[in-house]
Amino acid sequence: MAEQDTAAAVKIDAAAPAAAGAAAGAPAHSKKSKKGKLQVSLKTPKGTKDWSDTDMVIREAIFSTLSALFKKHGGQTIDTPVFELREILASKYGEDSKLIYNLEDQGGELTSLRYDLTVPFARFVAMNNIQNIKRYHIAKVYRRDQPAMTKGRMREFYQCDFDVAGQYETMVPDAEMLDIAVEGLTSLGIHDFKIKLNHRKILDGIFKVAGVADEDVRRISSAVDKLDKSPWDAVRAEMIDEKGQTPETADKIGEYVKLNGSLRDVYNKLKEDAVISGNELAAQGLTEIEDLMTYTEAFGIDNYISFDLSLARGLDYYTGLIYEIVTAASAAPANAAELKKKAQHGNKDKNPDDASEYVGVGSIAAGGRYDNLVNMFAQASGKKKAAQIPCVGISFGVERIFSIIKQRIAAQAADVKPIYTQVYVMAFGGGKDWTGYLPERMKVAKQLWDAGIETEYVYKAKANPRKQFEAAEKAGAPLAVILGKEEYADGKLRIKRLGPEFADDDGELVDADKFIDTVREKLAQVHEDGVNEVTRLIRGL
Amino acid sequence: MAEQDTAAAVKIDAAAPAAAGAAAGAPAHSKKSKKGKLQVSLKTPKGTKDWSDTDMVIREAIFSTLSALFKKHGGQTIDTPVFELREILASKYGEDSKLIYNLEDQGGELTSLRYDLTVPFARFVAMNNIQNIKRYHIAKVYRRDQPAMTKGRMREFYQCDFDVAGQYETMVPDAEMLDIAVEGLTSLGIHDFKIKLNHRKILDGIFKVAGVADEDVRRISSAVDKLDKSPWDAVRAEMIDEKGQTPETADKIGEYVKLNGSLRDVYNKLKEDAVISGNELAAQGLTEIEDLMTYTEAFGIDNYISFDLSLARGLDYYTGLIYEIVTAASAAPANAAELKKKAQHGNKDKNPDDASEYVGVGSIAAGGRYDNLVNMFAQASGKKKAAQIPCVGISFGVERIFSIIKQRIAAQAADVKPIYTQVYVMAFGGGKDWTGYLPERMKVAKQLWDAGIETEYVYKAKANPRKQFEAAEKAGAPLAVILGKEEYADGKLRIKRLGPEFADDDGELVDADKFIDTVREKLAQVHEDGVNEVTRLIRGL
Repeated sequence: MAEQDTAAAVKIDAAAPAAAGAAAGAPAHSKKSKKGKLQVSLKTPKGTKDWSDTDMVIREAIFSTLSALFKKHGGQTIDTPVFELREILASKYGEDSKLIYNLEDQGGELTSLRYDLTVPFARFVAMNNIQNIKRYHIAKVYRRDQPAMTKGRMREFYQCDFDVAGQYETMVPDAEMLDIAVEGLTSLGIHDFKIKLNHRKILDGIFKVAGVADEDVRRISSAVDKLDKSPWDAVRAEMIDEKGQTPETADKIGEYVKLNGSLRDVYNKLKEDAVISGNELAAQGLTEIEDLMTYTEAFGIDNYISFDLSLARGLDYYTGLIYEIVTAASAAPANAAELKKKAQHGNKDKNPDDASEYVGVGSIAAGGRYDNLVNMFAQASGKKKAAQIPCVGISFGVERIFSIIKQRIAAQAADVKPIYTQVYVMAFGGGKDWTGYLPERMKVAKQLWDAGIETEYVYKAKANPRKQFEAAEKAGAPLAVILGKEEYADGKLRIKRLGPEFADDDGELVDADKFIDTVREKLAQVHEDGVNEVTRLIRGL
Repeated sequence: MAEQDTAAAVKIDAAAPAAAGAAAGAPAHSKKSKKGKLQVSLKTPKGTKDWSDTDMVIREAIFSTLSALFKKHGGQTIDTPVFELREILASKYGEDSKLIYNLEDQGGELTSLRYDLTVPFARFVAMNNIQNIKRYHIAKVYRRDQPAMTKGRMREFYQCDFDVAGQYETMVPDAEMLDIAVEGLTSLGIHDFKIKLNHRKILDGIFKVAGVADEDVRRISSAVDKLDKSPWDAVRAEMIDEKGQTPETADKIGEYVKLNGSLRDVYNKLKEDAVISGNELAAQGLTEIEDLMTYTEAFGIDNYISFDLSLARGLDYYTGLIYEIVTAASAAPANAAELKKKAQHGNKDKNPDDASEYVGVGSIAAGGRYDNLVNMFAQASGKKKAAQIPCVGISFGVERIFSIIKQRIAAQAADVKPIYTQVYVMAFGGGKDWTGYLPERMKVAKQLWDAGIETEYVYKAKANPRKQFEAAEKAGAPLAVILGKEEYADGKLRIKRLGPEFADDDGELVDADKFIDTVREKLAQVHEDGVNEVTRLIRGL
């Protein structure tokens, strides 16, 4: 799709942008129209979008659910800069390094937008000589990938990461990461998923016994990683034609990477295989898997796990257990074409490439162990004897989880409001000379704010009753505090429930100097069932 | 200070970065050491810093306090991309446009990091044809300014903005912005502040009657804006020598911009001044100030306000009321030199330029009315008859507020932990052959997690009691659930309060199959005073 196909063309006077061009860099994409006006595009950059309204409420609820989860497991949060020194990111992402966004050299250091939260975390741990930490980080990352609406792939997107750094008993934090995946997804109402799991040491052992040279291991691993999208024949061809392996090596690899099943079944199969269990690396991996089985059984999460030898994961830095959580509840909607059409013509989503809700199958969380990344930074900083700080982490894919939850809410035709207003302050009177009680409404609103109650009123001196009721309904306020022309003059306020079922209810008249108590009581009645609608919807209850 | 003075030098094998350089852009700043190793710097980019530990807890508490405030006033939140099309930002920031960070042209659109949250908001409103919205946005913005530790000036920093867009009764949302400033700061325990306020129309009227040409108004306004840092003589000289005004014009301006006092006093003075009240622009401004007085009195916040004609604000887009909230509670600590020394030598703050806690006097919130910004986007997009969408907003300066609160907490020597762990699961046994109950501890922890209780345990098979108690203390857990070697075998768990005052308390032995209830009861006892320590500290109670 052409860059500006779906953008609203914007024309502004040539004078202003010319001055701006001088100051902030000339906008090379701006084009002059026939009339000599400069055109700019009223849109967000490719692969990015604005979040607002209901979408924002859902996303914030996901974040708070996951934050609570991470805190439950002893996590503390950190915040690192959106850009890092370019050299910090260098050589961490293999073939994907080309997707890194660079900042322009405007004098000073060369910097790039972060590609993930893991490398900045490792830099943070190394820089501060941290020996152990459980940290979570919910923030945006940046990849100059081709945006794909069908896959929910954006150039700016959130990651929700939990990582444990420190020297610990083998597989103990790893098992907790898998448990966190299960707890996180089920607390978001997602139950139909499986954890695909593999071990880099076992995989590397397989490559070794199949005859792959050490220097080719990561490249062959990359090829295997494509098995979730490509058939074996294509991957086999890549190994032979592009990556210089013999057909025998490729076939030997193929024999193993097709294996998958329960942890125990695949473990047993490999253990009985003398070639594999005879390889030192693979044998180490198998011992770790043995421990992992004990721990995942203790957590009662072994039924979610599929030991899948075709899982390789693209990133260079993994050294041990790796995992990806996939859901059968693919969020690709039946009416994708219709939604796309709407996105192209509607106001809210100008760019259908930006409509991340149309997600195909894909992983909704992923992670693994990376034992050398911190060490690589630490040793290089001159601490030659720096202790190794092994790490293990999990990252939730927010955009995909969002799509699943949004679909669920849409299916329930639920109305999630982005505003929390509890009370609408109104004034009813009459006569041309009546002031409309605007400062008086403000005084009443102020008392409610001071009591911590979400309150609005119409920003108009003389507002008619119908408009005030409409505004209250739009805000979703369950309660009105009404200043009647005569009643308020008598020191009284009327407190009334809103909504069609209370149309005939005139409410209650109370003393203006102690109306807050009545408001509190009535709000307690409104919320007496104690169910927070958004929370219920997010959890799929 | 030289760019890399305070950085830990990092050496890594030349091979890896060379490969990375090809992929992600060669790191121009890397230098080869004598031994031919490539050196990279283990630090964050200039003017940025990592946030962690207690600082992070304080900052998150500030965000949640302000979010609740914005929701209380009917606000909904949006999220816009960190970078915008470069042309969107062009010609919005006057002389400060040179501080905009550009992204490298890697093919595709030209983009820049956002400089504030206001221009992206106006773009969002125009792009989506929004007629009215109350929105808040808490997010990072970017300015290539000279970082200054003494002023808390960073290149990456947070803004907390609340803006109201829509056609409303004059000065009504404006007054609410001022009220929000008062409620926001007092809810953060800051009481010693004043709102400096001015009106662009009155200021422009003054310039007009003083003889400033229309095309010079914004440049002269910029000069006046420096009066909070520079003496009048310097500003006068700038007007005459650099900005081509006559001494008479400058002196006439000087006569007015020295005025300040209560809203009513300064209003009266200007109203009585025939030259000012005879100017159409200034007269409009004065009528608005008259309304504002009624509303700020209704809110009971007039005592915070100082009408200060020297306030000009740098940004081009303001069109009406402008304001800045300054605090007398300057956070410049008496021991700044000592803190700086600590920052230079300690582990946590390698770069003293990044130590934003050393804040001098400065504004802690600011904002104003900008009635043409949305319209500028909307009209230019071809909607020639687009209705004007006036806007008014306020932005809280988080870094400065943070410094004040951090100082207050430091003065109380309070311990704010970044972890929320409530229960530490331990196992006590003995004998070389004992397993250490690791999978059993995991099983117990899992039950606590499933009950929503923040729980940790030591990631070690055989952990000795002392180490487990130390870990629990470090995490700040008030309760231990103990698996005694024999007790657990008998189906029992021991639940014990932690802390020095409970050293002699052996706790309570309960059935393992219903221990959660006892944990809940004991946690309720722990928290029975209902005071959240962090909340109390943030509010300055």
